[in-house]
Order: sequence, then structure tokens, then C-alpha cells
Amino acid sequence: MKALEEKIVKEGIVLSESILKVDSFINHQMDPVLMKKIGLEFADRFRNNQITKILTIESSGIAPGIMAALELEVPAIFARKKKSLTLTEGLLTTEVYSFTKRESTEIAVSNKFIEAGDNVLIIDDFLANGQAAIGLASLVEQAGANVSGIGIVIEKSFQQGAEEIEKRGYRLESLAKIKSLNNGQVQFVRQTQHTN
Amino acid sequence: MKALEEKIVKEGIVLSESILKVDSFINHQMDPVLMKKIGLEFADRFRNNQITKILTIESSGIAPGIMAALELEVPAIFARKKKSLTLTEGLLTTEVYSFTKRESTEIAVSNKFIEAGDNVLIIDDFLANGQAAIGLASLVEQAGANVSGIGIVIEKSFQQGAEEIEKRGYRLESLAKIKSLNNGQVQFVRQTQHTN
Repeated sequence: MKALEEKIVKEGIVLSESILKVDSFINHQMDPVLMKKIGLEFADRFRNNQITKILTIESSGIAPGIMAALELEVPAIFARKKKSLTLTEGLLTTEVYSFTKRESTEIAVSNKFIEAGDNVLIIDDFLANGQAAIGLASLVEQAGANVSGIGIVIEKSFQQGAEEIEKRGYRLESLAKIKSLNNGQVQFVRQTQHTN
Repeated sequence: MKALEEKIVKEGIVLSESILKVDSFINHQMDPVLMKKIGLEFADRFRNNQITKILTIESSGIAPGIMAALELEVPAIFARKKKSLTLTEGLLTTEVYSFTKRESTEIAVSNKFIEAGDNVLIIDDFLANGQAAIGLASLVEQAGANVSGIGIVIEKSFQQGAEEIEKRGYRLESLAKIKSLNNGQVQFVRQTQHTN
């Protein structure tokens, strides 16, 4: 997605060979016009998949999630993160390990909102090792629903997430794919042309 | 705002005389079409105030915040909540006390994104005791910026928040004002007519 790649080049800050800071337009300050375009792009890629629900995770997945939901005219649900859950009645839960924080978090969704028969599109802002996306997919499957695909705003293609997701047979659509952050430069994976 | 009040009557669950559950359309599952209308209503009420930034707080403020930002064509920033902050360099921070959880949380925003001269519209999903909104206003003022107003999706008018906010001289716009949740019934404050 060209507008997104251009914004990353212009405003993204390469903090290290594995960390790209996009807090001026994605995950702290948000550019609503770009977010709308992101939502539209996700919608276009999944328009023919009879999506019935969007599932994302707090906090940075909410903006792209709601924008995709608006375009597809389906509800969006955000999973909540908890250090540990004491009460799990009525909840679908799973554990997600963060390599960055070196800790596990429980994520949870009410079982009222994802049901057997739902076709769920999972949305998140970043894909690194894929643990969050795979955790969200597990919640969907616990509900007996179908994972129609995983939509990611920025994929760090030099990490394991994309491979882990595809290995499990899920369809993955990433709007920007980063090949490398070496030498303080953002290099994108050369993609098939998508209009935006 | 009529569409919001109707949705509250239809889908809101009165859990007690002080707790209204709206997790099927506002703060867990989200109705994107209603969120867009909420954003438009906030934008209409603040259209003439030269808003330059929206400030909200994770997680439930993000959806109404980004929708208002889209209509006003300004960036939206969400404050992050932390149990305790160790590094505060480059951050505007303040402490927010939650009467529900009986604990204090630190909230933080990067000082890069709110500056002197900004006219900031604060958005949140609920107003109860007003601590979150007043905390957000404090972050804006620490930056030397102007609090143009506070926009709330659902105000629990039987609690202290509205009074606390107005006492401090901030303009408050709440889209639904709940007078009482007694006897399992949602009763709204009779409002001046707003078209939606």
C-alpha cells in the first residue's frame, strides 16, 4: 500500500535493526485519514470473503480494526490484555508470549461476540513473531468460528510471524512488508502492485 | 443524540444502580456505523473551535476519538495507562484515581504530540467521576496547550464528573446523559434537541 509505505519512509523512526517507531501516525498519535485508507484496503482485500466480524486487540489494533469494520459493515471486537485472569467465565482466553517484553499476557474476548458460523478477519498493527495474531486465531477457533484471514498494517518480514501464520494455513495480508531495518534504513519487500 | 440513546435502551445492560454495560456496541464489541455517527456529532459540536488535536485514552476512547478526528481532519492521540512509570523523559504524565478499581494509574502522552498553541478536544467513552477526563486536561495544560472541550459518549449524570469538569471551567459535551439506572431502567436527562 503506497500511501502507507510513503508515510513510513517520511515519519517512521528506525530505532534499531528490529524496531521501527511509528508513533506519530499509527500507535500513539494516529493519522485518521491514513487509518481510513488502511481500513478500506483491508476491506478491499477481504471483500469477497463474507466476513461477519473483525477481531483485533487493544490498543493499537483498534483504529485500523474499526476502520476496516466500517468499510465491511460488520462489528469489530477488541480482545483485552490482562496480566492474569482470575475470572474466566463467559470468556474465550489464551496466553500470548511477547518476545520484546519477555512475558506472557492473557488475552480475552467475551464468548457472546464470536460464535460458530462467524467468518472472522483478524486485524493488528504490527506483525513480528506472530504471537498476538496466532493467539487471536486461537480465540476464534475456540468459539468454533472460522479465521478468514489476518490483516496486518506493518509486517516485519525479517521476523518469524509471517512464516508462523502461513504454516498454520491462515491467509495473511500485510499492507506494508519490511524486509530490513539495517543501517537505519527502511527497506520494503517488493510487492505485487496494489492500487490504493 | 437519538441513535445513541436508542442503542443504549436496546442493548445496554443495567448491572446495578451505577453500572451500565455497553460492551456489545461501545467498549468491547464496537458498532462502527454508530461510532462514525458519534464522531460526526462530536465534530459538529466543536466544528467552530479550531480544534488542532484530539486526545483520548486507551482503550475504549480510541474508536470514538479516531472517528471524531476523521471528521475534524486532525490527528488523534491516545494516552497510555501504566501501573507505574519508571522512565518519564519526553512524556507528559499525571495520576488518575479510579473509584471503581480503587487504585491509581499513571497516564502518559509523548510531549512531541501536544504543543503550546494546540486546541485540544478530549474524548472519552464514559464520564463517571471525571478523573480520567481531568487527568487528560492536565496533560494538555502541562504542554501549554488549550483544552477546547471535553466530549463524552455516555455521561452518568448522577455521579460527580460533569460537576467536577464544569467547576474547572471546561466545556463539556455528552452525547447521552444518564439521569438514573434505578430499578434496572435507563433514564436519560431531558436534553435540548440535537439532530443526529
